[in-house]
Amino acid sequence: MSNEALVQRLRDELGNGAVLTDADVTAGYARDMMPLAPVGNPLAVVLPVDTAGVQAAVKACADAEVPIVPRGAGSGLSGAANAIDGCVVLVLTKLNEIVEIDAGNRLAVVQPGVINLDFRNAVEKHGLFYPPDPSSYDWCTIGGNLSTNAGGLCCVKYGVTTDSVLGLEVVLADGSLLKTGRRTVKGVAGYDLAKLFVGSEGTLGVITQATVALKPLPQAPSTFVAGFSSTEAAGEAVARVVREGLVPSLLEIMDAVSIKASETYLKTDLGAGSDCRALLLAQSDAGGEAGRRELATLEQICTDCGADLAYATEDLEEGKMLLQARRVVLTALETYGIWLTDDVCVPRTRIADLIHGCEQVSAKVGLKIAVVGHAGDGNMHPTIVYAPESPEEFARAQQAFDEILEIGLALGGTVTGEHGVGKIKRDWLVREIGPVGLRVHRQIKQALDPGNLFNPGSMFSMQD
Amino acid sequence: MSNEALVQRLRDELGNGAVLTDADVTAGYARDMMPLAPVGNPLAVVLPVDTAGVQAAVKACADAEVPIVPRGAGSGLSGAANAIDGCVVLVLTKLNEIVEIDAGNRLAVVQPGVINLDFRNAVEKHGLFYPPDPSSYDWCTIGGNLSTNAGGLCCVKYGVTTDSVLGLEVVLADGSLLKTGRRTVKGVAGYDLAKLFVGSEGTLGVITQATVALKPLPQAPSTFVAGFSSTEAAGEAVARVVREGLVPSLLEIMDAVSIKASETYLKTDLGAGSDCRALLLAQSDAGGEAGRRELATLEQICTDCGADLAYATEDLEEGKMLLQARRVVLTALETYGIWLTDDVCVPRTRIADLIHGCEQVSAKVGLKIAVVGHAGDGNMHPTIVYAPESPEEFARAQQAFDEILEIGLALGGTVTGEHGVGKIKRDWLVREIGPVGLRVHRQIKQALDPGNLFNPGSMFSMQD
Repeated sequence: MSNEALVQRLRDELGNGAVLTDADVTAGYARDMMPLAPVGNPLAVVLPVDTAGVQAAVKACADAEVPIVPRGAGSGLSGAANAIDGCVVLVLTKLNEIVEIDAGNRLAVVQPGVINLDFRNAVEKHGLFYPPDPSSYDWCTIGGNLSTNAGGLCCVKYGVTTDSVLGLEVVLADGSLLKTGRRTVKGVAGYDLAKLFVGSEGTLGVITQATVALKPLPQAPSTFVAGFSSTEAAGEAVARVVREGLVPSLLEIMDAVSIKASETYLKTDLGAGSDCRALLLAQSDAGGEAGRRELATLEQICTDCGADLAYATEDLEEGKMLLQARRVVLTALETYGIWLTDDVCVPRTRIADLIHGCEQVSAKVGLKIAVVGHAGDGNMHPTIVYAPESPEEFARAQQAFDEILEIGLALGGTVTGEHGVGKIKRDWLVREIGPVGLRVHRQIKQALDPGNLFNPGSMFSMQD
Repeated sequence: MSNEALVQRLRDELGNGAVLTDADVTAGYARDMMPLAPVGNPLAVVLPVDTAGVQAAVKACADAEVPIVPRGAGSGLSGAANAIDGCVVLVLTKLNEIVEIDAGNRLAVVQPGVINLDFRNAVEKHGLFYPPDPSSYDWCTIGGNLSTNAGGLCCVKYGVTTDSVLGLEVVLADGSLLKTGRRTVKGVAGYDLAKLFVGSEGTLGVITQATVALKPLPQAPSTFVAGFSSTEAAGEAVARVVREGLVPSLLEIMDAVSIKASETYLKTDLGAGSDCRALLLAQSDAGGEAGRRELATLEQICTDCGADLAYATEDLEEGKMLLQARRVVLTALETYGIWLTDDVCVPRTRIADLIHGCEQVSAKVGLKIAVVGHAGDGNMHPTIVYAPESPEEFARAQQAFDEILEIGLALGGTVTGEHGVGKIKRDWLVREIGPVGLRVHRQIKQALDPGNLFNPGSMFSMQD
């Protein structure tokens, strides 16, 4: 089938309005938020409105042997959703219905195009809580969250996306619809295919519906902040939180560069003093006496570890303001240049080592690197700042990006904690999983997608 | 390679003592605890002591094209570990080392042959908690728990086995060793292969090591019991617990038959009165004020739902005695005959419907059926009692077993909540997952085990 014939078939089956080919328009669907990732020119962008439309598009592309790159909102940070030359970009944002909220069984059925925040708000009306909260929660979609197994600030207590998934509907490479998983909280009938598709970054199929478990809505959170004049002290405080069995509902870290950027941007003083090297921000949603006890223990740990500042508040607005310091870091860094954010996860005892490693990389490449991260999980986002107009600085930023991954691996970590592999960490994936791991990945991809239809070359290549 | 040559090669590579062929001895390794499952005569039983031994055994069997049935302690309830004629039974109980407990990162590395209880006790010394607690926890192995994705009483609050798994080492069908997953709490580098192997019932590879996340040791539990004169009332209480967002650390149900059996066996009166149709048993490990508040809310819900008995205690010994009533049910049923325990999981709003369905099946087949289960998960174990000497009663028990699965499916449930498919629910698996689901299972099995070496015919067949 020629490209023209494919486009015509897509128009015939999905409607003219669902198929975009104007290069100016398709460019808007061709990439995500990761500047390092290669981008191709799509043949067409397709926006089906239902599962049947997805199946029709997949069948048409399979017949034409034209690759498909599925995508949601494009908030990703790995290039997984970036177009490759001549592909069809399959946009899932119009499958955006919350199909069902079953409060009696604490579950919901949701389509992939629903915005994370909209979904969270909808279930909250039933007194329920959908935990995954990636930073882009106000514009990323559930489908993208599923495909990347997204995390967020909640993970330290509530886990990542896969921990909420009960069942999926997935359009396979031949256009057939797989319904896998269940509506019950437990079940072991067959392989756990749902958790295989979660985090597969669009390489195995197209998720068109998910059944997810919901949690009871937690209590309003109390917030705690601690400032340290040494990174080691902050790292030791995190390690002690883990060792002593505290499970706060949020535990974030900001290094000196992040604190400075945030304070400048917010035109405020976080109260940490000029020699502050690290801030820990924590919340407890245990409520009442339990919440107070949790934060009191946290305060004791931080003080024991030498914190110069330790402050707790039950005031919601004040808590939001404190968290704001963490949330604005990436925006604040834009006052210095363009940012490139990395994503490594290390054992929770090695956080200070990672921050020091980033300081050394920063000195070596001569670029500002701000480290913020989900301290309670060891999942850190060292963020490199470079001048947009300088290809040479961009090259140094890339060098720093890779050296940080090297440090993460050396500390016993992984090259991606929550952003994914996509089109930027393929070589790093192979380093991490080794030849046997790569072979198994290829065997599974070959089994489910023998024509290499879905997102070919993303995550890993089928050939050496 | 002839069978004799294979046995000789296994002896040469693993040592004479590691290879058993005496039929009287091998019979002891040929089956698990499920009377319905077919059992074959193994060619040999092999007990390697390390991963290299497992690899050698797998390579030898692959060369000889002799199937392998992996097993742990044999506590399974699906026949997954049952031998097939001419197979090699690969026993993992001698890989029984706790390799590492890393309290600072709340994780442990453990071999498959370690007994669940031994592992729990070992991590408890570090103030840590390994949640999965199947009823056979004092003799089942971690390897069997991984292969069946075992659950237990803890699941209502702490999830099933897969929720604790960070990484695995798995011997593949060509004898190579796959290391998958990680030591960090988050990570999305590649497909989640660990969660694919968990629950795959020995059909995809042999797990030789696991890295598992541990929880902080919970507070000493408070215990609560409520008695109801109607099953509906007890079912409504469970539904309200879910709806109101309570997450007790245990929430079990016993029906009238179970209560009677337990009271007779323990020669005690559970205090529920003669017209008691259902007991709910709950624990809270929230501790202190939070624990008291949780049980007070539970008591209020049960009273609102019409409980005739509602009793809470913080006394540990008294709590254990109350739980004892639940734990002895299967043993107590043995005073009536042989038991055959089923395993269905239904939406938590449908528990009373399932119990009533079981009462109807009981009346129809003329056999006693006791229903006990993990009410907080909707995972019920209707247990059919039959006379061991009567093939006719056994046939009626089988009929009841199937009819209960039928009811479970009709209520929107699954045909196995935690025991697995094994060699007894293959047809039911196909009914639940459908033709597309079966095809994907076969594709994955074919990809990872093209010679159908591992546990062939268990869980599903490669041919229609």
